[in-house]
Amino acid sequence: MTKQPIGIFDSGLGGITVAREIARALPEEPLIYFGDTARCPYGPRDLDEVRRFVLEIGSWLESQDVKLIVIACNTATAAGLALAQQAFEVPVIGVIEPGARAAVMATRNRRVGVIGTVGTIESGAYAKAVRTLDAGVTVFSCATPRYVDIVEEGLRRGSGPVEDLLADTTEVFIRPSFYEISRDYLDPLRRCDVDSLVLGCTHFPLLSTAISQAMGTGVRIISSAEETAREVAETIARRAQRAPEGYAPVRRFVTTGDAHEFERLGSRVWQAPLGTVESVELAELSSLPRPDLIALLDSPGVEPTCA
Amino acid sequence: MTKQPIGIFDSGLGGITVAREIARALPEEPLIYFGDTARCPYGPRDLDEVRRFVLEIGSWLESQDVKLIVIACNTATAAGLALAQQAFEVPVIGVIEPGARAAVMATRNRRVGVIGTVGTIESGAYAKAVRTLDAGVTVFSCATPRYVDIVEEGLRRGSGPVEDLLADTTEVFIRPSFYEISRDYLDPLRRCDVDSLVLGCTHFPLLSTAISQAMGTGVRIISSAEETAREVAETIARRAQRAPEGYAPVRRFVTTGDAHEFERLGSRVWQAPLGTVESVELAELSSLPRPDLIALLDSPGVEPTCA
Repeated sequence: MTKQPIGIFDSGLGGITVAREIARALPEEPLIYFGDTARCPYGPRDLDEVRRFVLEIGSWLESQDVKLIVIACNTATAAGLALAQQAFEVPVIGVIEPGARAAVMATRNRRVGVIGTVGTIESGAYAKAVRTLDAGVTVFSCATPRYVDIVEEGLRRGSGPVEDLLADTTEVFIRPSFYEISRDYLDPLRRCDVDSLVLGCTHFPLLSTAISQAMGTGVRIISSAEETAREVAETIARRAQRAPEGYAPVRRFVTTGDAHEFERLGSRVWQAPLGTVESVELAELSSLPRPDLIALLDSPGVEPTCA
Repeated sequence: MTKQPIGIFDSGLGGITVAREIARALPEEPLIYFGDTARCPYGPRDLDEVRRFVLEIGSWLESQDVKLIVIACNTATAAGLALAQQAFEVPVIGVIEPGARAAVMATRNRRVGVIGTVGTIESGAYAKAVRTLDAGVTVFSCATPRYVDIVEEGLRRGSGPVEDLLADTTEVFIRPSFYEISRDYLDPLRRCDVDSLVLGCTHFPLLSTAISQAMGTGVRIISSAEETAREVAETIARRAQRAPEGYAPVRRFVTTGDAHEFERLGSRVWQAPLGTVESVELAELSSLPRPDLIALLDSPGVEPTCA
């Protein structure tokens, strides 16, 4: 048993869907959520830059004595998971492998769809993860970047669940409509006869009911957020690192950007008030990684060997 | 729900340790265990020959309408898991990834040991599986072939658990003794300070208490058999393919070798009478794989693509 927190980070607010699933699976665990909103989005950035951010934020989380780090961001997982696993003493879990694993287990016809940002889909990380687990499963991928716009626009408007806005015909929420966009995005996947669809972007759980309706019955929707939470729970249980029973945990939210804006929008993703959001300066972050960790950036392929 | 059986196969008797864990985790599931004792052991054979055996036995199990296939053999998993996943309609689970995954989750100092046959260790399959899951975990491997001899000699003698023989000083069970052999095998792993040890051979669960004592307290022993059973249980649950509640399942045992000998020794691994053991002729087996499956042997790297 330990009262150390779980550290979770993302380029922005999307990873709060992962934090929420972790809090649901592990209600007694203290959490620190770090949203690097000052540098969001990571997608268009150089891979090496993202890897450096991963080292910075991981080092900051280690300074807060976390027992485990979750990279709740598909771009940062694809770019920096292996590096972070080599850099830090605590286990590091990404969002890609858990979703891939669930899809492999769930599919009956061995045809799996994945949707995500352009960067995530182009990285091929989900397809690779699925193939490693099961060489007989075929992955059909489709980048669906406008779903991110819909979620972000939805968070800025209204106050209820983002999905409720999709049915609101009294105002022009987004053009073309969610349904037109989904037809373009999802029809090819339906034609490929996938029976499972991985939501490979942390924003997408906020649209999961609508996406499920658009895919039709018979297609299992797999949330990487939910699957990552399962993986975190299993890891902590196996390491006997659960918080004490009945523990009332502190959940801290930290941002590099505007704390007030983070609180306002983040509370909508968290589906409850976040409370006071803390700020961390980028200058502080960039000073954190030890020189031996920075050196890893130049030798990403080097693995530790037995003396 | 489905009353279809789970198919499990191995080159011989060792995989019965996996079947036993599956029966423990899923007591209502019908099982078919196939031991290819006529061609045992697989270790010294050419990889392509083993891959052909995997296609033959998998085809036979498919003809018995199994809902899932478990390759309960480290050699056959390393050689033929990906091929079998491409060849068969049902999910195929091997013994290597589940053990590697458990080790990654359990280790606190990120130093994991693996023991197995010469072939399994030299294949590097566990080290590769661990590294894929967590690039920061170092694997220290050691081939421990004499443990297989000890189990097989132990099964031929006595009637209780194999481990009981290790403490019997009234007769020369094996020379040098288990403790001397273990010192040679395990001292290097202890010096490498591993905190988790994967039993990477299906025979080894029959020695797990003795191996644990030899490694000393503080080292977690991870049974690939037990972890594979967890993976099977999770897969069947996610696919809603559990047998009906309260179902009294049939468990069939099948061999290509001497059925009487299989029953006698297999009952000791199963720790209960196997009942009547069925025989399958090698000639029947070799006629089973469809030509398109045989063609896969020549193009192992080819993956299905989206039309």
